[in-house]
Amino acid sequence: MTKSNAFLSNCPIAKVTQILGEPWTLLVIREAFLGTRQFGAFERELGIARNILSDRLKKLVDHGLLKRQPSTSDKRVVEYRLTEAGRELTPVLVGLTQWSKRWLCDETVPLRFVERRNGRTVPPVAVRNADGEALDPRDIAMVAGPDADEVLIDRFARLGS
Amino acid sequence: MTKSNAFLSNCPIAKVTQILGEPWTLLVIREAFLGTRQFGAFERELGIARNILSDRLKKLVDHGLLKRQPSTSDKRVVEYRLTEAGRELTPVLVGLTQWSKRWLCDETVPLRFVERRNGRTVPPVAVRNADGEALDPRDIAMVAGPDADEVLIDRFARLGS
Repeated sequence: MTKSNAFLSNCPIAKVTQILGEPWTLLVIREAFLGTRQFGAFERELGIARNILSDRLKKLVDHGLLKRQPSTSDKRVVEYRLTEAGRELTPVLVGLTQWSKRWLCDETVPLRFVERRNGRTVPPVAVRNADGEALDPRDIAMVAGPDADEVLIDRFARLGS
Repeated sequence: MTKSNAFLSNCPIAKVTQILGEPWTLLVIREAFLGTRQFGAFERELGIARNILSDRLKKLVDHGLLKRQPSTSDKRVVEYRLTEAGRELTPVLVGLTQWSKRWLCDETVPLRFVERRNGRTVPPVAVRNADGEALDPRDIAMVAGPDADEVLIDRFARLGS
């Protein structure tokens, strides 16, 4: 482990990759968005091994994306529901799916995101500035913030060098 | 492997999780966005084992997010550069980072995305409809598209059941 080990830094991408950067996790989240709530239903929908599912659900609960609560219809049954944090992943999930459709699915349309009330297709998620103008990747820079730790400050200092 | 095994489906989320759903991959992409190009530089910046880095770079090249090309300053040196597909991950990367700052970093600001030309902070990435109105997660539905395979059609048929 060196001082510059990315996982020791407080970089938000390093933190999030420790949750989402594992096989199955994004699919478990997809299922939660589709309304899957019970352990057995996740298992059935995904064809995932019980020990892996159990690990992924636990991590998502520990990190606050899902919450465990008794089913309203049968209090002995535990359900996993998206928290506010989990639901706020929507732009990422939609953007990731749109990207995958464009680049990994040969522009086919296996699934779509639509506005619930009128069925209109949701256009591609874009990064916009405060005036609502779409920004090109080249218009955007990543810079250290006031709370960057030593590792991150060090990293940004080496930019372009 | 059951018929409903998610990895056998043409679901775009299943496809993308096979690339990004691995430890380190998002950090390798972060480095590429920051301008890191050579194997040794990725290794140094991330403190990552050579065999893992080699595997991740190969996958990112195989899936078209990075391309290998000779360095302009020394043709014997190989560089890894973001492709158009890789750069188009920007909204996902920005959204993921903003989410992580909000939910995993206690609202601290280790890093920021800014407009390159004027330094203004980039506001949160949102899903918007065709009129530019921000959509709440609850306003959005995921539905099967015309190219959904049997597994996906089957999956959407079970929604809410």
